[in-house]
Amino acid sequence: MDTIILQNPIDMHIHLRQDSMLEAVLPYSARHFSALLAMPNLNPPLMDIEAILAYKKEIMRITQIDSEKNGLKGDHFVPLIALYIHDNLTIEMLKQAHLAGVKILKLYPKGATTNAENGVSDVLCPHLLTLLEKAQKLNMILSIHGESAGFSMDREKEFLEVFSELAKTFPKLTIIIEHLSDRHSLECIHKYENLYATITLHHMLLTLDDVIGGKLNPFMFCKPVVKTPADRDAILQAALSGDSKISFGSDSAPHTIQAKLEGAAGIFSAPILLEALCTLFAKHNKLENLPQFLSLNAQKIYDIKLPFTKQITLKKDSFSFGESIESKLGNIAVFMGKSSLDYRVHEIEIL
Amino acid sequence: MDTIILQNPIDMHIHLRQDSMLEAVLPYSARHFSALLAMPNLNPPLMDIEAILAYKKEIMRITQIDSEKNGLKGDHFVPLIALYIHDNLTIEMLKQAHLAGVKILKLYPKGATTNAENGVSDVLCPHLLTLLEKAQKLNMILSIHGESAGFSMDREKEFLEVFSELAKTFPKLTIIIEHLSDRHSLECIHKYENLYATITLHHMLLTLDDVIGGKLNPFMFCKPVVKTPADRDAILQAALSGDSKISFGSDSAPHTIQAKLEGAAGIFSAPILLEALCTLFAKHNKLENLPQFLSLNAQKIYDIKLPFTKQITLKKDSFSFGESIESKLGNIAVFMGKSSLDYRVHEIEIL
Repeated sequence: MDTIILQNPIDMHIHLRQDSMLEAVLPYSARHFSALLAMPNLNPPLMDIEAILAYKKEIMRITQIDSEKNGLKGDHFVPLIALYIHDNLTIEMLKQAHLAGVKILKLYPKGATTNAENGVSDVLCPHLLTLLEKAQKLNMILSIHGESAGFSMDREKEFLEVFSELAKTFPKLTIIIEHLSDRHSLECIHKYENLYATITLHHMLLTLDDVIGGKLNPFMFCKPVVKTPADRDAILQAALSGDSKISFGSDSAPHTIQAKLEGAAGIFSAPILLEALCTLFAKHNKLENLPQFLSLNAQKIYDIKLPFTKQITLKKDSFSFGESIESKLGNIAVFMGKSSLDYRVHEIEIL
Repeated sequence: MDTIILQNPIDMHIHLRQDSMLEAVLPYSARHFSALLAMPNLNPPLMDIEAILAYKKEIMRITQIDSEKNGLKGDHFVPLIALYIHDNLTIEMLKQAHLAGVKILKLYPKGATTNAENGVSDVLCPHLLTLLEKAQKLNMILSIHGESAGFSMDREKEFLEVFSELAKTFPKLTIIIEHLSDRHSLECIHKYENLYATITLHHMLLTLDDVIGGKLNPFMFCKPVVKTPADRDAILQAALSGDSKISFGSDSAPHTIQAKLEGAAGIFSAPILLEALCTLFAKHNKLENLPQFLSLNAQKIYDIKLPFTKQITLKKDSFSFGESIESKLGNIAVFMGKSSLDYRVHEIEIL
């Protein structure tokens, strides 16, 4: 297809970080996406509604500046922000968050990834179960970085019993397997009505061989780690199918090149997401399913209502973003930045 | 045990490299080991007997200088060097090598590791089979870096069918699975009388989690890549048992810290091998099997006859080597250099 029109792309899992990093990376998402879910694992994490509201204000401030520069007028971007679940979270704090319109909770097992030191030690402890009972009543959504503390290639698979247990205990609570990386998780989300998943671009494309198969490649290193060819293929097919249980969540995670060389986990894909997804879906003749994956499924699963339509027109054209972007902290390598993609963003309209 | 006496330690797989790198790393092995097998994947590789003899001369020259500095008199170190198998190797070249006392052939599948670009494209091609027929007649030994071109975690297991095929086709040829990294290879060496293995220190200690389990750790990255806990445990037990089919081969492979950060595969362990092996065998109450693993098995498998006894006395004492060694190319990180080991080399005698 020579022209692809996308309406209201949504990225349900992204790391925008804070301060100068936020300023450097946010505009890429704010221009191309209508909504996103920003992860709360900042330093310190977003552990109460005050922190979330301050973060949202900062996001809107930066978006405003960028929108004026780019001639994007009026409402065109909704940043959702997840509340970080921690041992000191109370029912009262949950209610406050809900009142203020925050309805997505993010659960990290302690230490599972960047800034997860304040995460939960025991996912099934009584305190957390009480909180989740309340979250279910409030119709909130539980997003989970689901990894055990076991062998890296088995961590997600091992965590599926926790997902199953939670799905059964809280049948009315929408639970999300974030950045699904193991083919066994696909079986799991289809087993429980209230279990869903997000899938990243890089888990659709990479295997462990991209990290360790030749020379070690720190730029392909993320958590959960990319897995076997069988996992990658199953994840790709699930995304291409437009499966109603799956939303797109880029897990775009900026780190400076220096931090990446020192072993930080995370792949920064925000600047090329729409172009790469169009290229990939077109290559597999599945463009008809891209609206589900990139927008419609998320709207249904998370009950997102957008008061505008942001329409992105992409044209068939060789597009190469460039290797990295600048930030005050240092350059940030862009996933597929050196690749030649088949589509280029031609026009952004707010309808 | 407070004192451990080792006689004639042998390292049947080591990378000494060339020029200033050789000068930097060789002394650690020449002091502590009676014999070693130096790998021929230099740049260019050691593809004929002339190259091997020139390399041997350089090794002896550097050893001589270091021995004088350390008061080690007379013969105390035998460097064996493997001949690199390549597509242009002829029967005549094989005979010349054999006449000159070179009896170990090293086979790399093309591109499998550092400087393996001249390796063999097809291990079972007619030309190679003819060479191996001759090698068998000459009573030579075939050491193989056994990895397929498949998924990194399956490469060694997938290559076992080649080992089986070669073991059956050449039943009188001694064949070595180098740096055994997969527990399935242990079953394989016990299935064929003429199939043996070398095991490294780091494959006895590490799993993939040490590379990708937390932050990415390039200093634990090697080929074949360290695998699962089940593989690591099986390898450790096999080595500790003194299994007569297994010799120690460190696969110590120096790269500068800069090269490691850029993704080079290889772990440099030469400076701490004896101390670490004593610590490990003592911890598991298996010191009685260390002579088999570290010397006697290799003498039998490779028919090595040493005209001297180098005796190393280690005493129980906290020992920490240090993080790195210097070379003209840059510092080289030392595996376990920061660890506190339980034994220290006290005396080296030539009997």
